[in-house]
Amino acid sequence: MASNSFGTVFKITTWGESHGIAVGVVIDGCPAGVEIEEKDISEALAFRAPGKSRYTSPREERDHPRILSGIFEGKTTGAPICISIDNQDADSTKYEGIKEILRPGHANYTYLEKYGIFDYRGAGRASARETACRVAAGAVAKKLLSYRGIEVIAYIKQIGNIQAKIEEVSRKKIRENPLFCPDEEASFLMQTLLEKIIAEGDSVGGTVEFIGLSLPVGLGDPVYQKLEASLAYAMMSIPAAKGFEIGEGFDSCCMQGSEHNDLFIQEKGRILTKTNHAGGILGGISNGMPLVGRVAFKPASSIRKKQNTLLSSGESISFALPEGSRHDPCVAIRAVPVVEAMVALVLADAVLCNRCVKV
Amino acid sequence: MASNSFGTVFKITTWGESHGIAVGVVIDGCPAGVEIEEKDISEALAFRAPGKSRYTSPREERDHPRILSGIFEGKTTGAPICISIDNQDADSTKYEGIKEILRPGHANYTYLEKYGIFDYRGAGRASARETACRVAAGAVAKKLLSYRGIEVIAYIKQIGNIQAKIEEVSRKKIRENPLFCPDEEASFLMQTLLEKIIAEGDSVGGTVEFIGLSLPVGLGDPVYQKLEASLAYAMMSIPAAKGFEIGEGFDSCCMQGSEHNDLFIQEKGRILTKTNHAGGILGGISNGMPLVGRVAFKPASSIRKKQNTLLSSGESISFALPEGSRHDPCVAIRAVPVVEAMVALVLADAVLCNRCVKV
Amino acid sequence: MASNSFGTVFKITTWGESHGIAVGVVIDGCPAGVEIEEKDISEALAFRAPGKSRYTSPREERDHPRILSGIFEGKTTGAPICISIDNQDADSTKYEGIKEILRPGHANYTYLEKYGIFDYRGAGRASARETACRVAAGAVAKKLLSYRGIEVIAYIKQIGNIQAKIEEVSRKKIRENPLFCPDEEASFLMQTLLEKIIAEGDSVGGTVEFIGLSLPVGLGDPVYQKLEASLAYAMMSIPAAKGFEIGEGFDSCCMQGSEHNDLFIQEKGRILTKTNHAGGILGGISNGMPLVGRVAFKPASSIRKKQNTLLSSGESISFALPEGSRHDPCVAIRAVPVVEAMVALVLADAVLCNRCVKV
Amino acid sequence: MASNSFGTVFKITTWGESHGIAVGVVIDGCPAGVEIEEKDISEALAFRAPGKSRYTSPREERDHPRILSGIFEGKTTGAPICISIDNQDADSTKYEGIKEILRPGHANYTYLEKYGIFDYRGAGRASARETACRVAAGAVAKKLLSYRGIEVIAYIKQIGNIQAKIEEVSRKKIRENPLFCPDEEASFLMQTLLEKIIAEGDSVGGTVEFIGLSLPVGLGDPVYQKLEASLAYAMMSIPAAKGFEIGEGFDSCCMQGSEHNDLFIQEKGRILTKTNHAGGILGGISNGMPLVGRVAFKPASSIRKKQNTLLSSGESISFALPEGSRHDPCVAIRAVPVVEAMVALVLADAVLCNRCVKV
Repeated sequence: MASNSFGTVFKITTWGESHGIAVGVVIDGCPAGVEIEEKDISEALAFRAPGKSRYTSPREERDHPRILSGIFEGKTTGAPICISIDNQDADSTKYEGIKEILRPGHANYTYLEKYGIFDYRGAGRASARETACRVAAGAVAKKLLSYRGIEVIAYIKQIGNIQAKIEEVSRKKIRENPLFCPDEEASFLMQTLLEKIIAEGDSVGGTVEFIGLSLPVGLGDPVYQKLEASLAYAMMSIPAAKGFEIGEGFDSCCMQGSEHNDLFIQEKGRILTKTNHAGGILGGISNGMPLVGRVAFKPASSIRKKQNTLLSSGESISFALPEGSRHDPCVAIRAVPVVEAMVALVLADAVLCNRCVKV
Repeated sequence: MASNSFGTVFKITTWGESHGIAVGVVIDGCPAGVEIEEKDISEALAFRAPGKSRYTSPREERDHPRILSGIFEGKTTGAPICISIDNQDADSTKYEGIKEILRPGHANYTYLEKYGIFDYRGAGRASARETACRVAAGAVAKKLLSYRGIEVIAYIKQIGNIQAKIEEVSRKKIRENPLFCPDEEASFLMQTLLEKIIAEGDSVGGTVEFIGLSLPVGLGDPVYQKLEASLAYAMMSIPAAKGFEIGEGFDSCCMQGSEHNDLFIQEKGRILTKTNHAGGILGGISNGMPLVGRVAFKPASSIRKKQNTLLSSGESISFALPEGSRHDPCVAIRAVPVVEAMVALVLADAVLCNRCVKV
Repeated sequence: MASNSFGTVFKITTWGESHGIAVGVVIDGCPAGVEIEEKDISEALAFRAPGKSRYTSPREERDHPRILSGIFEGKTTGAPICISIDNQDADSTKYEGIKEILRPGHANYTYLEKYGIFDYRGAGRASARETACRVAAGAVAKKLLSYRGIEVIAYIKQIGNIQAKIEEVSRKKIRENPLFCPDEEASFLMQTLLEKIIAEGDSVGGTVEFIGLSLPVGLGDPVYQKLEASLAYAMMSIPAAKGFEIGEGFDSCCMQGSEHNDLFIQEKGRILTKTNHAGGILGGISNGMPLVGRVAFKPASSIRKKQNTLLSSGESISFALPEGSRHDPCVAIRAVPVVEAMVALVLADAVLCNRCVKV
Repeated sequence: MASNSFGTVFKITTWGESHGIAVGVVIDGCPAGVEIEEKDISEALAFRAPGKSRYTSPREERDHPRILSGIFEGKTTGAPICISIDNQDADSTKYEGIKEILRPGHANYTYLEKYGIFDYRGAGRASARETACRVAAGAVAKKLLSYRGIEVIAYIKQIGNIQAKIEEVSRKKIRENPLFCPDEEASFLMQTLLEKIIAEGDSVGGTVEFIGLSLPVGLGDPVYQKLEASLAYAMMSIPAAKGFEIGEGFDSCCMQGSEHNDLFIQEKGRILTKTNHAGGILGGISNGMPLVGRVAFKPASSIRKKQNTLLSSGESISFALPEGSRHDPCVAIRAVPVVEAMVALVLADAVLCNRCVKV
C-alpha cells in the first residue's frame, strides 16, 4: 500500500518529484464554503521558502501555487482542491555524477532496494521538496481552523545544545527571526553555532516546538487515533524527524504522578487545569488547554565533509558534496513551517471527525 | 470517525470495556496458513498479566483468550480472527462513589465532554485493559513475522532517572526480571526507587526501548507511512505514552551530520552501515540494520496521595485512591509487552504492504 | 487486503464461521447516545431467522445476540459495539463426506485456490450465516436513522417469473406474509411455484425491492461514493446477489430522456419531483424523494437434483444433496431482511458523512 | 467524508471541474517497474473523446494528458503518478443564463442543497468530464494487467430496445464501429433509432457489456469486497448508470438452480465450468472463467425538448437546451471506454490485493 495520503476526513494526497515538472497536493474532504485564495497559499509557501537567510539552503524556488480545482467564486465547493507548484531552478545534471553513490544518511539505498528504481534527480520523491505540498495544504487547513478560532504556531526550540527559553510566543517575532526562534538571545548563540557549522561544511540537529491554541475539548479519539498519536504520526513523517513528544514528553519519565498530574480548577465557569504537563491532551482527547509538543530533527545528511561510503555496486568510494553545493546547516529551521502545517492538518481532521460522535 | 482499528493490510479492531463482559480483537488481513493456537495467545497475555511482581497492579486477571473464528485445523484461513478475553475480577461498586470526580490526569472529563456519556466502571474503554487485545493480536503478528525470521523485543530502559545500560538483549533475562529490565544492576536500583514510590503512594515515569531484528531492507513507505511514523503512531496510542524516538532520537539534536551519518560498508557481500544512529531506517524505509526506538511513559495518574480537583458539576473536592486500591507505581513496566506487540503489528503490516511495490 | 468491514464512518466488521463457536460483528463509529437494547437486535434476527415457513431452510438457529461492549446504561457510548451470536445446531459431520467435492455454484473451489485452505464445515465463512451479523448491525443503524425519521423497508418483488404488484407497502403485511411479499395474490402464485420447486428438489431465483423513506436531500457523494454506488456495493456483497438497479434501472435503457426526466415541482413549499424514475437520487445525492431499488438473487446452488461435477483432485463425480438436507427453494426470501439491513447501514453511514460537508 | 478516491491498493484520486483549468488524477499504489508513456494515456483518451461520430456530443476536447510525476526513464517508480489534462473549448458564458434553473434529471439541485454552492459552469464536478481521469488511470491499470495477461473489453449491448447479438468480440471491430457495437446489423438499427432521437431533440438509454479475459482464479474477497460488489460500486459510480448485473444478472431470477449451476469440468488439466451463468465469479472470487457483466445507462437528462421545471427560488419556468447546443443522444456510447477503464481499475486492485492472502 503506497501512502501518499494523510488524514481521514480532511485528507491530502501529495505527488511530484523534486526535479519533475511540478509537485502538488489534492485536498479531499475540505468542507464547502471556506474562503480561500492563491495568496493564502503563496504566503504560506513564502514562509517555508529557502534562501531567506544564510541558514537555509539558498535554492531559489519562487513557488507560485496554482489552484487547479475545488474553488468557485472564492470559496471551496466541497470538490477536491488540487494545488500545483511548478518546479524551477532544477538542474539535474549534477546528480548524474553521483547517482551510483550510496550517500550516507540518504534514502537512495533503501528506495533502490524497495522499488528497484530510483529517481535520483534531486532525490526525486525522497526530497524535502514534497513538504511544500504539506505547507500548501496546511494553509487551507488553517483557514478551516480559523472558523473555529483555533490557531497553530511553531518555532525553533533548540539547535545543537542551545535551548531557547520560551516566554511569549509572538507569531510576528518568530517570522522575523532568521531562525524562527522567539528567544533572541538564544537565537544569537544559535547563529554563532551555525556559522561554525557552515564553516566546517557540517550540519547540526535541532528541535521544533509547536503550540495549538483555543482547541475545544473533545478533539482526538480514545484508542488508536489519539490526538497525540495522530500528531506523532504526522511529525515523524517529516523528513529528518527522529523524535516526538507531547507535554513533558521524555522528561515525564523522571517525574512523579503527584507532580505530573494537572489538577482541575474552575476559572470563570470554565474547567481548566492548573498546570499543563499533559500538553493539552487527556486520554487521547484534547482537554481545552494549549496543545504543546516538540519534534527532534537530526542533522542534515548532506554535508561537505568527506565521508567513506559505497557505490551501489558495492565498491568503496569517498564522497563529499562539491564546494558551493547548496545545503542546510540545520534542517530543523526549514521544518518549522512544515511542523505548523502538519499540526493544522491533524487538527482540521480532528475537528471534522468530531462532528460524528454524538447522535 | 471512531478509530478502534489499527493497521492497513494486517488490521486489528479492538472492542470491550474494562468492566464489561469481555474485551476482544478482530484481526482482519492475516494471510492464510499461519499456524496458531490459543496457547500462543495465552502465553503472550501471561507476559502482560499484572500481579507478577509487587511492581505491577495486583489485579488477578487470569486471561483466558478464546479464538472464536478464523482458525481451522490449527491454521489461519484468511478469514477474520476474533479473540475474546472474558473480564473477571471486575468489581464496579467502588467506582460508584467516585464517578462524579474529575480525577487528575484521567480521561473521564474529556470523554464526558466528547461523548456526553462515560462508562466509569473501571474507566471503561479508557482503561489499559484494552491493551490485552493488542498483546493478543501481537502474538499472531509475531507468528507471521517468524516466517520471515523477524524478531521483536522490548524492555525497560529507564525508570525515574535510573537508566539501564543495555549490553546484551536476552529475551529470557528480560522475562525473568521483575521489571523486564536486562541490566540487573540498574534493575536493583529501580526496585529501590519503586519501593519508595509505593511507600509514598505515588508513581513514577519510565522509558521502554524496543529492538527489531532481521528486518529485510524495504519495510515502510517513503512519505507518510514512513516506518518511524507508523511506529510513532502505534506507540503514542498506548495509554500514558508521552514521547517516541527512533535511533538517536532527541539526542540527535546535539549531533553533527558528520557524526550522525551512518557510513555504508560491505560485510560478507551484504551492505550494512558501520554505526546505527539512524535506528535502522533511512528515508522512512528499513535499511536492514536493527530497528531501535524508545517510548516515554508518564507516571500513572492513579495515586494514593490526596489531590485537589473538581466534581463534574464544577465543585471543588479533594481526592485520593482509597488505601488498598490496586495501582501501578510505574506503568512503563506493564507497557513492555504492549510496546512489543505494537512493534510486531507495525512490522507485520509493513511486510504485507511491501508485497505490492514491484510489478 | 481482507475486507470484512463495511462503511466509512458507521463501520462494521464481521467475523465468524457457520459452524464455528459464534459469529459476530463489531460496530465502530456509532455516535454516542443511541438507545439500544438486546431486544432490538434479537427482533431483527427473528425476522431473518430461517424455519419460519416451509419456504426457508428449516435450520433452527435460535439466535440470541449478546451485546459485549459499547452500551452503558442503555445507550451507546461512542465505543465499539461488539455483538456476538453463538452458533447452535451445527452438525459438521455430514460435511466430512463431501469436503472433497467441488459443488456446482459453490465457493469451495475458489476459496481453496485463493487461500490454500477451506473451512468446509457448513461452508465456514462462505455461509450466509454471516448475514446474521449484518442484520444485527442493521438494527443498530435503523435505530440511529430513526432519530432522523428515516425508514427502510424491503420485500419480495419477484420469484421465478411471478412479479408482485406493489401498491401499498405495509411493514406489518410484509412481515406476516410467509414470503415477505406485500401482494397477496402474487404471493399465492409464488407459493404454488415454490411447492413445485421443492418437489423437484430444485431452487428458483427472485428479486427483492427496497424503499427508503424520509431521506433528507444531500445523502451520498458526487463522484465515487454516489449513494447508488454504495448501495450497489452493499447489495452485491450479499450472497447470491447477481444484479442491482436503482429507480427504473435496466428498464431505463428503453426510455427516452423526455420520459425519464423527473420534473421539479413545488408542493407545500417543498421542492419535489413529479415522478420518481430516478429512484430518489440525482448526481449520486439523495433528492428527498423515496429511494427505490432492486436486487436480483440467483437460484440457490444447493439442490437435491443430481449434478455432475469434480473432486478437488480433478476426478469426475456425481453429486446430490442427500434427501432430507435442509436447503432454501428461493434464497431471495431470506435475503429480504439482509437487504433491509444493508440499506440501513448505507444510509446511517451517509447521514454521518454528510455532517462534514459544510464549513 | 468526500470520496474522490477509488481503490484500495491501486488507488486513484481524481480532481477538476468541467470548465476549470484542468482535470486530473493521482494514481497511488501502482507498483514500480510498469512501462508507461504519455502515448498510452492519450490513445485511451482518444477512444473516449467525443465528436468521433454524430452520435456523441461534438465537444472538441483535444485531450493532451501530461504525466506530471511518478515516471522515470519510462517506468513507474512506485511514487504517485499525477496525470493532468487541460480543459479547452470551455465557454462558460452560456451557463450564466441558466444557472438558476433546476434542470430535470440534473444534479445542480442536490449539489446546492448538500454544499450550499454549485460550480454551474459546465456542471463543474458533476460533469462527465471527470470520467476522462478514470480513462487515463484505466490506461495505467491496463498496462499493469497486461503483465499478467489479463484483458478487458467493453461494448454497446443495447440501445433503446435494440439488442446486439454478441458472437465474437473483436477489439478492432468495436473501436471502428461508430457506436462501439460489435454486431453490425444491430448497430445499423441503432443508428436509425438515434437519427430519430436526434431529430426529436431527445435522448435514449442503453446498456454496456464488459468482458474480462484470462483472469486467474482468486481475485476478489469473500465477504464485502466481493469481485462483483467492487465492480458494481465502480460501475454505479459512472454518471447516468442505473443498473448493474453480473453473469445472468436479473435473468437469473427466472432460472432454476439445476439450470443456473455451472458444472465443473476438467479440460487439458485445468478446472473449468461447462457453462458460465455465474459470469466468472463464485463466492465473490474469480473462478478463471470469463468475467461478464452489464451496466444500464439512463437516457441523458440534457435534451432539446421543452420541459417544465423550477428556478432554485421555487418559481416555475419552462426550459429547453438551445438549438445547436451539444448533447449526447445516448450516453451509453460514450460510457463504453469508461466502463472498460473501471473494470481495469477494479482488476488491477484485486490482483495486488491478492498478493497478501497466503503466508
